[in-house]
Order: sequence, then structure tokens, then C-alpha cells
Amino acid sequence: MCLTWIDELSRYSSHEIVGVVTELGSKVEKFEVGDNGGVGCLVGSCGSCNNCANDFECYCPKQILTYASPYHDGTKTYGGYSDHIVADERFVLRWPENLPLNTGAPLLCVGITTYNPLCGRITTYSPLGYFRLDKPGMKVGVVGLGGLGHVAVKMVKAFGAEVIVFSTKGQEALQGLKADCFIVSKDQDQMQSAMSLLDGIIDTVFATHPINAPLLSVLKPHGKLLLVGAPEKPLQLISFSLITGRKIVGGSTIGGLKETQEMLDFAASMVWLLI
Amino acid sequence: MCLTWIDELSRYSSHEIVGVVTELGSKVEKFEVGDNGGVGCLVGSCGSCNNCANDFECYCPKQILTYASPYHDGTKTYGGYSDHIVADERFVLRWPENLPLNTGAPLLCVGITTYNPLCGRITTYSPLGYFRLDKPGMKVGVVGLGGLGHVAVKMVKAFGAEVIVFSTKGQEALQGLKADCFIVSKDQDQMQSAMSLLDGIIDTVFATHPINAPLLSVLKPHGKLLLVGAPEKPLQLISFSLITGRKIVGGSTIGGLKETQEMLDFAASMVWLLI
Repeated sequence: MCLTWIDELSRYSSHEIVGVVTELGSKVEKFEVGDNGGVGCLVGSCGSCNNCANDFECYCPKQILTYASPYHDGTKTYGGYSDHIVADERFVLRWPENLPLNTGAPLLCVGITTYNPLCGRITTYSPLGYFRLDKPGMKVGVVGLGGLGHVAVKMVKAFGAEVIVFSTKGQEALQGLKADCFIVSKDQDQMQSAMSLLDGIIDTVFATHPINAPLLSVLKPHGKLLLVGAPEKPLQLISFSLITGRKIVGGSTIGGLKETQEMLDFAASMVWLLI
Repeated sequence: MCLTWIDELSRYSSHEIVGVVTELGSKVEKFEVGDNGGVGCLVGSCGSCNNCANDFECYCPKQILTYASPYHDGTKTYGGYSDHIVADERFVLRWPENLPLNTGAPLLCVGITTYNPLCGRITTYSPLGYFRLDKPGMKVGVVGLGGLGHVAVKMVKAFGAEVIVFSTKGQEALQGLKADCFIVSKDQDQMQSAMSLLDGIIDTVFATHPINAPLLSVLKPHGKLLLVGAPEKPLQLISFSLITGRKIVGGSTIGGLKETQEMLDFAASMVWLLI
């Protein structure tokens, strides 16, 4: 149940590895030698807990990270610092034919990190949908315009929703990423203009920042502020800001393997997502 | 579209009024003189916004509270301090026959405040369900055992879920309210025993209190901490506590009129809820 491939083309970070399959274990079913494949942030999980059974390996308490985790045999995982990788096929993604290996590689981390909180599709691993910010016509904010923010903007656009970027990089947001609107969150007039208008926000910022007045207040009732950045210091949360609008502050990490495959296939169907 | 009744029997607080209908406006359809009825926290809303259209009058920005709000005609609402009340029938609840007026009255505030975050039924006003903590077999925590906490425990039991109370009132929780388990959140051994076990928590505490280590850590992945108490000072929220388990911190206020009626009918079907 293992396969080997050389990371010939792309090694973008410690946990985004793409390449060509060069060897197959005897029980491998979904790959052939010569196929393109990818390994994201995970190379193992227990396989039997409730999370694994529901395709949420990313929340398995025994998950094994692709980089710097003890593997089943006690060795340490080296992720993107390896020249090749041997992995259980469950943790290897089929690479869509029209998805370039080089520009597609970052999707294995930032792609699934932003796709998961946005996507509310009803699937086996999320039978009731979840945060559901993927509907055309919705207004979705993206806070911060680093790696996660860039991809979040593209994902929101790909779902057909309207994107409002909260950042200092206005020109890049509007021209480069085709965001619909750009707001400087410290500008009170601009913030006032967005009051109670947004269905949700993806917050990608890793620095401690205020969330009550600037962010929760631009959400509609039932709006969702979803954190994918992880500031070290606590955020100050005024509970009244949630209670008066049945709002939520949520967070999510990556996604399970099935969802990551779904995200890659979705990205491949939206070529412009990668431009 | 109005009716009048004398608050003969019960006046529990400023915004929980029950009594007997004594006069009807010409267009009133759902009441007759002599019926029992109730008015909860709301006596008005705009009737045309998206929230009103979806039976979420409690999130209408023009909502009129039963107590201390300016009414349509500019007068001030006096709620439970009145001898009688004239109200639009949309804001008057039909009182179930077997529901005692006196013990049932508090449901108009604490009942709907706890029913709404727990109940995830798929209805016209919440077409996809919402927080969904109403399933038999779930483990649901209740933090604090004041008015809201007492009713929350009963509601969770009524839904068939297991109740874990976090409070100092152990004997009352276990014997009086039939909670399944009682935990002192400052006792690290007790908290350790509940680690990652709960599907959700209803937090009724109005004093500032820690939420990360004691509460978010006893939630399963995808668990929900729902605030109905509103501490004045900010709560300290470590985003990593949410991200690593796709957890959420949410809040909710009361509920719309249709949902409040549903809650009353549900309570009437569960007589022991009122004991």
C-alpha cells in the first residue's frame, strides 16, 4: 500500500510536494508509474477514529504531519526537504491532467485551508454542509493578503460570491486579483459603509488584531468570521457582538484527503484560479 | 390587528407577560376572548427586512422590545410593569392548553434563549438547521446554573442528549435537574476526564471567565461553544483553540416568534420540563 515518486518538479515548502510516481507497492490501486501526484500536509492518521471514518484525517489526534512528525516506524518525516517520498496511497492526491504541477502545488496547503471554511457542499464528509460561504451572490470578506489571502480571494471568486478585501494592498486586490471591493479596516468611514453587509469573512492574519468592532460589525446577522490565521496572543472577543446577531467565530485547519482531492479537481476546472 | 388582555396571573419580569385575552381588534384571527396568551421580549419589528421575512424578528434592526423601547406611536413600552398590554397578534404567543401560565411564563425569555441555540431542526426559519445540539446521544455541556442554566439543562434532557453541568452547584444539578454529570471547571482532574468529549456547550455565565483551556478543550472536533450569557469584559480567545478542531464560538439571543411558539408547544409536550 505504498508508492514512491521523485519530487522532480516542485518542492514549494515543507508540506507541499508534487511529482511523478516512480514505484508502486503491490496493493496500490489508484496510481500507475508515470502519474503525477501530490502529498499535502498529512502522511498518516489512525484510520479508525471517528474523524478518520468521516474523512477528517486532519482532526485525527494521531495524525502524522508530512514534515517534522514521528512516522509509524519511529523515523522523522522530512516532507519537502526529501528528494523522494514513500507514502500510503490514501495520503497521495491524484493530480488533475490540466493542473500545472508548479503553480498548483501551493493548493495542497493554502488551497485546502481556504477551500474548507468556504465550501459548504453537502458531501459524505460534511453531510449537512458546514460554514457555507460558497454561494453565488454572497458577500465574503477576506482579511489579509498574504499567501492564504491571495488564494482565498480567488476561491471566493470561483464560487461566484462577491469578494471584499480588508488589507493595505488595495491595487493588488482590485487589479491583480479582481476583488470586487477593497477596504482599509482602520478607516472608519470605509468600515461604516460595509456595516452589516457581509455573509462571512475569512481572516488570514497571523498578527494579533481587533475582531469585534471592525470585523464582527460588518457581518450580517448569522454571519461567520472564520479564522485560518493563528495569532499567538489571544483575540479579545466581546460576547455581545456574537449574541446580538447569532454570529459565530470559527476556525479550521486544512481538510481531509477526500476534500483535498475535491479541491484540486475544482481548481483544475477553474483554470483562471491559478493565473 | 391588535388584542388586549389583562395580565391577571403572572408578571414574572419586564419581558415575560402571560394572561387572558380580554379584547380583540377587528382583524385578529388567531385569538378569541378568554384565550390564554403570552408576550415575550418583543412587541414589534419592521416586518419587511430579510430577518423579519425569515421569521427572525429578534435580529431585525428595528425590533421593539417589550420593555423600555419606543413603540410605533412614540410611547415607551412598559412590559411587565403594565396592568394590561395591547399588542399586534404577530407578537402574541398561543398558550398551550396544558402549559401552566405561572410555571410556563419564564419560557418566554430563558426558554427560547436556550431552545434556539440547542435546536437545529430544519424549519422554514432555519432551512438548514443551525447549531444542531438537539440529537439524542449527543453530549452537551451547560456552564452556569442560574435561570438560563436551569432551563438549558432541562432542554438538553428533553432533546434526549446527555447533560454535563459545569458549575459549583453539584447536588442541585444531579439530583434536582437530573443532569448526567457534574464538573467543577477549576478542577483539572475532572476537566481532564472530559477532554474532547462534548458535542457542544451552552455557556450561560455573565461574569468574565476563561473559555480556551477549560471549555474549548472539552469539545470534540467540530464542537460548538454557544454563548447566551454576555460578560461585559472581552473573553480571551486563542484562535489556535478553534483552528485545530474546526470549533466555533457562537452566540444567540432569543428567537423569532414562530420559533418561540414551537418552543412553547414543545415544552407543553414535555410536562416534566416544567417541574
